[in-house]
Amino acid sequence: MIKAGIVGGTGYTGAELLRLLVAHPEVEVVTITSRSADGQRVDEVLPNLRSRTHLTFSRPSVERLKECDVVFFATPHGTAMRSAAETLAAGVRVIDLSADFRLRDPVRWQQWYGEPHCCPEILSKSVYGLPEIFRDAIRSAELVANPGCYPTAVLLGLLPLVEGRVVDTSHLIASASSGVSGAGRKAQINTLLCEVAENYRAYGLTGHRHSPEIEQILAQSAGEDVRLTFVPHLIPMIRGLHATLFARLHHDTIDLQALFEARYAGEVCVEVLPPGSHPDTRSLRGTNRCRIAVHRPTGRDVVVVLTAIDNLVKGAAGQAVQNMNLMFGLDEALGLNDIALFP
Amino acid sequence: MIKAGIVGGTGYTGAELLRLLVAHPEVEVVTITSRSADGQRVDEVLPNLRSRTHLTFSRPSVERLKECDVVFFATPHGTAMRSAAETLAAGVRVIDLSADFRLRDPVRWQQWYGEPHCCPEILSKSVYGLPEIFRDAIRSAELVANPGCYPTAVLLGLLPLVEGRVVDTSHLIASASSGVSGAGRKAQINTLLCEVAENYRAYGLTGHRHSPEIEQILAQSAGEDVRLTFVPHLIPMIRGLHATLFARLHHDTIDLQALFEARYAGEVCVEVLPPGSHPDTRSLRGTNRCRIAVHRPTGRDVVVVLTAIDNLVKGAAGQAVQNMNLMFGLDEALGLNDIALFP
Amino acid sequence: MIKAGIVGGTGYTGAELLRLLVAHPEVEVVTITSRSADGQRVDEVLPNLRSRTHLTFSRPSVERLKECDVVFFATPHGTAMRSAAETLAAGVRVIDLSADFRLRDPVRWQQWYGEPHCCPEILSKSVYGLPEIFRDAIRSAELVANPGCYPTAVLLGLLPLVEGRVVDTSHLIASASSGVSGAGRKAQINTLLCEVAENYRAYGLTGHRHSPEIEQILAQSAGEDVRLTFVPHLIPMIRGLHATLFARLHHDTIDLQALFEARYAGEVCVEVLPPGSHPDTRSLRGTNRCRIAVHRPTGRDVVVVLTAIDNLVKGAAGQAVQNMNLMFGLDEALGLNDIALFP
Amino acid sequence: MIKAGIVGGTGYTGAELLRLLVAHPEVEVVTITSRSADGQRVDEVLPNLRSRTHLTFSRPSVERLKECDVVFFATPHGTAMRSAAETLAAGVRVIDLSADFRLRDPVRWQQWYGEPHCCPEILSKSVYGLPEIFRDAIRSAELVANPGCYPTAVLLGLLPLVEGRVVDTSHLIASASSGVSGAGRKAQINTLLCEVAENYRAYGLTGHRHSPEIEQILAQSAGEDVRLTFVPHLIPMIRGLHATLFARLHHDTIDLQALFEARYAGEVCVEVLPPGSHPDTRSLRGTNRCRIAVHRPTGRDVVVVLTAIDNLVKGAAGQAVQNMNLMFGLDEALGLNDIALFP
Repeated sequence: MIKAGIVGGTGYTGAELLRLLVAHPEVEVVTITSRSADGQRVDEVLPNLRSRTHLTFSRPSVERLKECDVVFFATPHGTAMRSAAETLAAGVRVIDLSADFRLRDPVRWQQWYGEPHCCPEILSKSVYGLPEIFRDAIRSAELVANPGCYPTAVLLGLLPLVEGRVVDTSHLIASASSGVSGAGRKAQINTLLCEVAENYRAYGLTGHRHSPEIEQILAQSAGEDVRLTFVPHLIPMIRGLHATLFARLHHDTIDLQALFEARYAGEVCVEVLPPGSHPDTRSLRGTNRCRIAVHRPTGRDVVVVLTAIDNLVKGAAGQAVQNMNLMFGLDEALGLNDIALFP
Repeated sequence: MIKAGIVGGTGYTGAELLRLLVAHPEVEVVTITSRSADGQRVDEVLPNLRSRTHLTFSRPSVERLKECDVVFFATPHGTAMRSAAETLAAGVRVIDLSADFRLRDPVRWQQWYGEPHCCPEILSKSVYGLPEIFRDAIRSAELVANPGCYPTAVLLGLLPLVEGRVVDTSHLIASASSGVSGAGRKAQINTLLCEVAENYRAYGLTGHRHSPEIEQILAQSAGEDVRLTFVPHLIPMIRGLHATLFARLHHDTIDLQALFEARYAGEVCVEVLPPGSHPDTRSLRGTNRCRIAVHRPTGRDVVVVLTAIDNLVKGAAGQAVQNMNLMFGLDEALGLNDIALFP
Repeated sequence: MIKAGIVGGTGYTGAELLRLLVAHPEVEVVTITSRSADGQRVDEVLPNLRSRTHLTFSRPSVERLKECDVVFFATPHGTAMRSAAETLAAGVRVIDLSADFRLRDPVRWQQWYGEPHCCPEILSKSVYGLPEIFRDAIRSAELVANPGCYPTAVLLGLLPLVEGRVVDTSHLIASASSGVSGAGRKAQINTLLCEVAENYRAYGLTGHRHSPEIEQILAQSAGEDVRLTFVPHLIPMIRGLHATLFARLHHDTIDLQALFEARYAGEVCVEVLPPGSHPDTRSLRGTNRCRIAVHRPTGRDVVVVLTAIDNLVKGAAGQAVQNMNLMFGLDEALGLNDIALFP
Repeated sequence: MIKAGIVGGTGYTGAELLRLLVAHPEVEVVTITSRSADGQRVDEVLPNLRSRTHLTFSRPSVERLKECDVVFFATPHGTAMRSAAETLAAGVRVIDLSADFRLRDPVRWQQWYGEPHCCPEILSKSVYGLPEIFRDAIRSAELVANPGCYPTAVLLGLLPLVEGRVVDTSHLIASASSGVSGAGRKAQINTLLCEVAENYRAYGLTGHRHSPEIEQILAQSAGEDVRLTFVPHLIPMIRGLHATLFARLHHDTIDLQALFEARYAGEVCVEVLPPGSHPDTRSLRGTNRCRIAVHRPTGRDVVVVLTAIDNLVKGAAGQAVQNMNLMFGLDEALGLNDIALFP
């Protein structure tokens, strides 16, 4: 059994990670930390886990983390980078679900997160945890930077186009929408039900932190600079993330459906839907799948790609477990086979 | 492997049954019928099952049902009673999720369902599928009448009081509320999102078909006539059912918490929560659990019981699987261990 | 024009009051206070008011309140009682939407609100602002204690029964449910969309502050002690409050429909629906109406009353305007004629 | 008083029209038709209108329509074109909220609606009812084709760019999302709450009927052919429509904010928000306003325009009333001054 620790267990990402790990056949969660819930039983704070775990939240302690085989950071940015060095030095592998190790350039990190990166030498060792691109590197990684939710959905939708060099990368467009759980479990007014229910709006148009993360990986895949216009929106629902992606085609004759099917052949967590499909988010709730549909409006030199994920699973905790499975030589989808509820 | 058939697989109850049976380690679904979806792949109609089943919907056929070990009817009332005799005669066990075999008295059935019961002789053989009362009879039953969603939540909350003879059974009150999935998957205006979202109301006060079902079982458990005032309401959400139950106490000194804990000691699908609790429906989504809290308002000779279930699981498909497990000598909760999503 | 001031303008009640007063033909809002939004334009904080008001939030100032004809307190409990004396002394009439002046007994107030009442001498002058009972006293009141949302819906449903002495007042039951806006606009986790959407549960069973308020008025109307079991629940929606009320009848022969119609004949804000009705909350959104339906289940000595209101209007801000209209000799429903959106 | 008739009064658009006209100071609704509700009181079918109207639904009758000054068609496509000629011939002005008169080219209409247009000679007389472009023609029009909801939001957002010739019109992109009321009040499965709540998806990518309508008007405004990629999505909420529009800029130096403010100076139903804004749909519920924000992502030759409306008001019934006001020489916004509920 893999001994796992979770740092930051009371947020939505930490809670989802716990749900997955408690049911994972090869994992034992040995420690879960939370400053706010220190001393409380996990199943009191998270009643969905009643009778499923005897864990108690504890204060963060490096000593206890050192006893783990793998530690997940499900914390706000700025926490993991301060603890990762010591944890890694003890031979513990780290999967960081926050943004601390996603941008390879510490200068860029500082621009977007407003403080200097505290361990650029570790940053250079981190592997970006999108298995559909970096599977081999993840297997042997000590430190995995788990992707953000928007980047996961946008990258999986654009990669075949960018890698295949079939679109104009100077003008990529991503109009994406997320359920409210993406905003986290924080005492704040602007995600109260009364503020977001029966409402829809864009946000972050003046600069969203997921933009540089997406562009970095796209540029790497394209082998050239890439310009993406990224607009996130908030949907009045709990879970689910949908990206509608637009690009201008270089070539009129490319078989886009075949391109996508070939790119994701053999991938267990990505499904290219039949032509004419529209993936919906609800069919993916609780699952670690990304569904993709490719459209080419008649008479246009434009491709429209639709992608859907559960932002807390393939967009966060599930992808972290997928990465853990790879790092420990397990079946990649082990413990990730839930069927979404319908309805 | 148990060979299972589902009659009526495109409704919400049938779809939920399919979700549970597809993942059940001891069951193989061999046939699933639907007149409307005849010939269509199941995973096209139910995209949450994509890559999880190769089944195709077919028209109802008694020949195919006869090849099963157990057949589930997830049909509107009036269907199962017309097919059950032939199915049972072939040695197939039947679990009916509709109302056809719930009321023991065919006269009463006719009063509430507006047509004569077509097979009263079979009705007399049916066992009411609430394992927490009729477990032994269910084990050997050929025909199980799976309880309605409201009856499950109301009965589990009132049983300890009625069996314990601690309340005035001439004045029991059940104010219950259900998510919209309880109304089924029918082309109709009154459960459109635009009709039920941002709305809450009572319905069926002039007579709801679950009333006689509840009173029948309560009377049997009490050994005397019982009078229940039952008011259902519609909640603007998909799944979940909550009952708030009121009764007047005979005795001032009874330890209600102990009464409930003793009654449900050992039950795997019923949890009596600690004193002062308020069960919520969301922690039970997708699970086959009923959670119960018992309250006694200060200075009142009144007991208030709160119960919560997922109407499609413990209130329908999950309870049907629980009954099947009992009928086939399996662990009662096999295949029913999902953890609810949070959030 | 009546010069009105609002203390506490950024909560949901204050915002609703502002919506109503900005459109009221006989009112000019001259000051609106908010510590948190001091200096901000009202229509920036409340974008539904863009181009409808030029007001700016200011810090609370007794000097500015003294220039008003009427001041509304839309503050948490404990604020109005500290400012009311000085405001009233300046000849300004006060309508308090908080709980500070609702309980006539300062000892009882302290029991429920955890601190001594700071001005019991003013408390004795206050009038409970339910026009359907206290209309005449309200007309000449200097200080009106605007009722809570649950009390409004529960009282209007039980009054005809209690005044008419047709039910057992030792065993009244109110199972009520409210939209989330009733919990206010506070930075807190437990009313985030992700916590309350797709969920339904009871709360406050160990004692809700609206209980003593309801019992006080019922006892006064009944002329005897009254015992009410009150269970509130939270509905996953923004606005709307529904009460399902149960009582045992003394007399078998009473015409309940006629009793209710007679009691509310001439009332402009209360509608007794035809027999067999189920009021829904959505038809009342934004309106100052209470709708009531009376049911008598067949063969039972029980009456079930269903009432519905918009918790922010007839349950708060609208009722405050209704009271203001009475206090200033205006038509009682002036400025309260909005038609609810459908859907 | 203007005598108004409504054909098709039980759909969401008809009901919204009725809400607006019942409260309109210069209109008397004299007839409202519905085949399905013939003979029923309007306020029984639409309980939000209880005590606000004494109308009764009747079967469609040209004789009764001829007594009106104006007739609104709130019917599915194919109905208005069959009745318009006779109604117009009687000197009655017609506002058609369906698609029958929106496309100027009957060949194009047949391509998209699957049957020949039955009165192309009348089609040529119709005026497209977007007052912000065709105000003068609307004033004297006999027949107004009220725009669709998506076209209203997309056109108002793109017009300043297209008229100003500042963008590449061969590659315009509209990613738009609508609440479920846009799908109408039909007995169907795919807009049940259980199908659309907690879900988000695109639809109609293989061709949405609002595309040719948008392109026709854009081409006319641009004086050249225009290519738009239009992707609609369904939001799990009742009302509200949001468009996120992307275009590539020809010129780097244009002041986009000034361009939009100048274009809509003096418009009473369009508000250009301050730079950096994100319009939300909820602040517009029940109002006839369109809010617009213009963004230019740093370092990109791209403009992003965000527009929001209430799909049933500025996207349907409210715009129809705005057109009626113009046709009858009234103040353009008369009867359209509701303030949106918050929250």
